[in-house]
Amino acid sequence: MTLTDLQQRLAEFAAARDWQRFHTPKNLVMALSGEVGELTALFQWLTPSESSSVLDDPASRAAVLDELADVTIYLARLADVLGVDLLAAAAAKVDRNESRFPVDRLD
Amino acid sequence: MTLTDLQQRLAEFAAARDWQRFHTPKNLVMALSGEVGELTALFQWLTPSESSSVLDDPASRAAVLDELADVTIYLARLADVLGVDLLAAAAAKVDRNESRFPVDRLD
Amino acid sequence: MTLTDLQQRLAEFAAARDWQRFHTPKNLVMALSGEVGELTALFQWLTPSESSSVLDDPASRAAVLDELADVTIYLARLADVLGVDLLAAAAAKVDRNESRFPVDRLD
Amino acid sequence: MTLTDLQQRLAEFAAARDWQRFHTPKNLVMALSGEVGELTALFQWLTPSESSSVLDDPASRAAVLDELADVTIYLARLADVLGVDLLAAAAAKVDRNESRFPVDRLD
Repeated sequence: MTLTDLQQRLAEFAAARDWQRFHTPKNLVMALSGEVGELTALFQWLTPSESSSVLDDPASRAAVLDELADVTIYLARLADVLGVDLLAAAAAKVDRNESRFPVDRLD
Repeated sequence: MTLTDLQQRLAEFAAARDWQRFHTPKNLVMALSGEVGELTALFQWLTPSESSSVLDDPASRAAVLDELADVTIYLARLADVLGVDLLAAAAAKVDRNESRFPVDRLD
Repeated sequence: MTLTDLQQRLAEFAAARDWQRFHTPKNLVMALSGEVGELTALFQWLTPSESSSVLDDPASRAAVLDELADVTIYLARLADVLGVDLLAAAAAKVDRNESRFPVDRLD
Repeated sequence: MTLTDLQQRLAEFAAARDWQRFHTPKNLVMALSGEVGELTALFQWLTPSESSSVLDDPASRAAVLDELADVTIYLARLADVLGVDLLAAAAAKVDRNESRFPVDRLD
């Protein structure tokens, strides 16, 4: 599945339930933010080291995957509603970051 | 560019700058959350209707694209560090949502 | 109850459970962020107008009060751990905002 | 200054600028969330230990105080617009938490 496939599926999911009227960019930004908040709560008391093995525990793994899925879903949906190509925007930003943060070369 | 391509590029970007040590899942969740906060700030005073045309203004468009790029970058990097396939996790979640929120059928 | 009273009570609550070791500023910022995410989720599908009467429904009222309480608790605890006087910091910021956003005077 | 004093001052500030129309609960939740995002960004790359001494550096100190002030301001304003007593709500929540998380007694 590609990001575009996911967005197509989410558009159909919303249309079938007449939920498009709720899916304004403002509302979707809030939904994205709420899901990132739930993801954050899963990591809040972990040390950085513990956070690296958060998927080892089956219950934590399921919870983290579920929140990452929700974050991905709302980000994909928001971009689709706005008509933004997320991967192109990200690539353009990495290009800018390459210029902002040049690698020191010694050779 | 695919999501996997982006993740490969971000991994190389971090490695070239010795930033991998900062990229624990805990820290990346915070970075993702911070960028979603900046995205939220761009929409906070807009009405839902205004939010639908936020890209019409060139300055707003550049700001929104920049924040969407940053959110995408940190979400992609977080998933890569955790070893999670975001699109597969999202597809599995949409499957579950199809069951949780069935469409009423009249035919 | 004052903010200082609340902070004193939260410090005793944490000490009695040996939770102080979890209460680093970094972790408390994440806890605050997670609670704000839960608060956000309660408002995400509401129109601005609906959000103004969110307390009219008893179940919504209880949920909003609970999340506002959690946000207040973690903000108060974070400030206490850092040794910051929140109300003094806020007053100083309002002073600066008075200068940044002067009121037009017609008289 | 008390929390109530701050809220009074913020209400007057908004009224003098005719900003009350922007201050719906939905918008204020987004503003609160955006400021918490900016606060989060200040802590994202710090170790938990480094986060405990974040105020030692003058520039970091000013930035953290500024964001804590903004978070406090929007939380206070949101509560005022909703008509919620934050400190009473927080105290009631601590009461509930005392029951949910009893302290083991050995004596």
